[in-house]
Amino acid sequence: MSPRLRVYLGPTSNSHLTDAIERAGGELVPLEDAEAAVWTSQDPQTWAKHDERGHLRWVQLLSAGVENWFDADVLDADRIWTSAAGAYARPVAEHALALLLALRRRFVESARTTRWEPLEGTSLRGSRTAIVGCGAIGRALIPMLASVESDVVAVTRSGSPVEGAIESHDPSTLTEIWPRVDAVVLAAPATDRTRHLIDAAVLDQLPSQAMLVNVARGSLVDTDALVAALTDGSIAGAGLDVTDPEPLPTGHPLWTMPNVLITPHVANPPSSLPLRLADRVAENVQRYITGQELLGIIDLEGRY
Amino acid sequence: MSPRLRVYLGPTSNSHLTDAIERAGGELVPLEDAEAAVWTSQDPQTWAKHDERGHLRWVQLLSAGVENWFDADVLDADRIWTSAAGAYARPVAEHALALLLALRRRFVESARTTRWEPLEGTSLRGSRTAIVGCGAIGRALIPMLASVESDVVAVTRSGSPVEGAIESHDPSTLTEIWPRVDAVVLAAPATDRTRHLIDAAVLDQLPSQAMLVNVARGSLVDTDALVAALTDGSIAGAGLDVTDPEPLPTGHPLWTMPNVLITPHVANPPSSLPLRLADRVAENVQRYITGQELLGIIDLEGRY
Repeated sequence: MSPRLRVYLGPTSNSHLTDAIERAGGELVPLEDAEAAVWTSQDPQTWAKHDERGHLRWVQLLSAGVENWFDADVLDADRIWTSAAGAYARPVAEHALALLLALRRRFVESARTTRWEPLEGTSLRGSRTAIVGCGAIGRALIPMLASVESDVVAVTRSGSPVEGAIESHDPSTLTEIWPRVDAVVLAAPATDRTRHLIDAAVLDQLPSQAMLVNVARGSLVDTDALVAALTDGSIAGAGLDVTDPEPLPTGHPLWTMPNVLITPHVANPPSSLPLRLADRVAENVQRYITGQELLGIIDLEGRY
Repeated sequence: MSPRLRVYLGPTSNSHLTDAIERAGGELVPLEDAEAAVWTSQDPQTWAKHDERGHLRWVQLLSAGVENWFDADVLDADRIWTSAAGAYARPVAEHALALLLALRRRFVESARTTRWEPLEGTSLRGSRTAIVGCGAIGRALIPMLASVESDVVAVTRSGSPVEGAIESHDPSTLTEIWPRVDAVVLAAPATDRTRHLIDAAVLDQLPSQAMLVNVARGSLVDTDALVAALTDGSIAGAGLDVTDPEPLPTGHPLWTMPNVLITPHVANPPSSLPLRLADRVAENVQRYITGQELLGIIDLEGRY
């Protein structure tokens, strides 16, 4: 039996994390005896003020974004730092699947009606879904869509093949893709390049049965153009967990459109966080012990 | 290359079926030259009045239930008869998944609100779903639930192991199962044994976070008991594609409850039927040619 990895868990602790570390082959020890640390505070100052930490070879942080850790200038090159980036991908992907199914099955109208009327939807089976952005969320969505037999067209910056997708493209071919997809799921980061990626021109190219799902950031969609496209029937529906502006103001036309489902930025329900984090910690402890590359390694040069 | 199977397609035809037969290795021929027939009429009299059919060794019918064919007394033992039983399972299973996701994610409330408010749901991941009845629909649902990491407890008449389920039970252990599931999906046939399977006692045993999904028949649920359980919070929600009475009358309390989604018996959308049937025909033509057991063989003794 290989020796257990000596892990410090702190400054605070919870049973999900202690269980995760121990089941993955770690042993909980005081900071001064540890080779690795799972640092539970989101506040970089908690790290800065601890002594007895210079000997750590690996520190696991628990947030997905680590801008504040860079800002506080505590991420040094003396050890490996990992974040929880990607650990929250599965619940977000599940939310995208739920929105897409709800739109195809006309659940918005079903939820609003108070009488038995012919609200017949369509199955996802045999449909084609474009996933724009195939990071952790997009990749997590692919097997979910496969389980209901929807084909995936992946759009990534590089265009290199994405596992499980029937086609993989870079953004240069988007105008050729839009007319032949039944749904678009946005899972790309908010950058200058993706701002208003879905604008009036794109909405015009999508087929009239197309559904738009956004679980990324509101800025990827030109909201006014979306309202216009839904009004004139250029596309068939939208499921938005993020909006622009956000929160979506009371009185906004999207609230009452027949095939539009707005959820208030809850794709990643807080209730699922402890388990997600525990899984990520367990996975990384196991990888560390067996010498595999850790998940979520922070790029000190690229600052992400 | 093996000789192509000579298949008659009629009395009517469509391109999905001709394509399906040909891609599976069949050759379309007149009735008198055929070894097998895909009989497209739902009316048994169309069969009875055709001559030149005695030599057929296999007849594929296109309905799932064949009571009227038995009633018309045309199903003889001179050949194999197959129905489309089970061919519609996947869209129904997909609808069950969609209902379950919509309930967990609080889409009913989201569809009804007109302002940004904290409607935070829960992920299916890590939850436990009981599927009652693991025929074609229940079995089709298992990989869909696996894709979102919900564990399946299968309940069947025999209790024999169901592939993909973490537990398989016969109905004798139901009282032990109810308290520890997060969702119940009904996919069992309507029989005397399943009538009011979900009654006040069962609803009382389910945990308060439990969701009930019915894509089978309304008679499996005691509707009044369900209304009471939803009102007093014994369970958390219900997604019903079938109701008792059906149609659900206007004014019924289920229409306006906060976490109840009623869909009007549309789990199997008619728009998906041609493709489903074509898939089943292709599958059976291929099985016939390669000597495998056909799907949906009609039991002439059991009359189903």
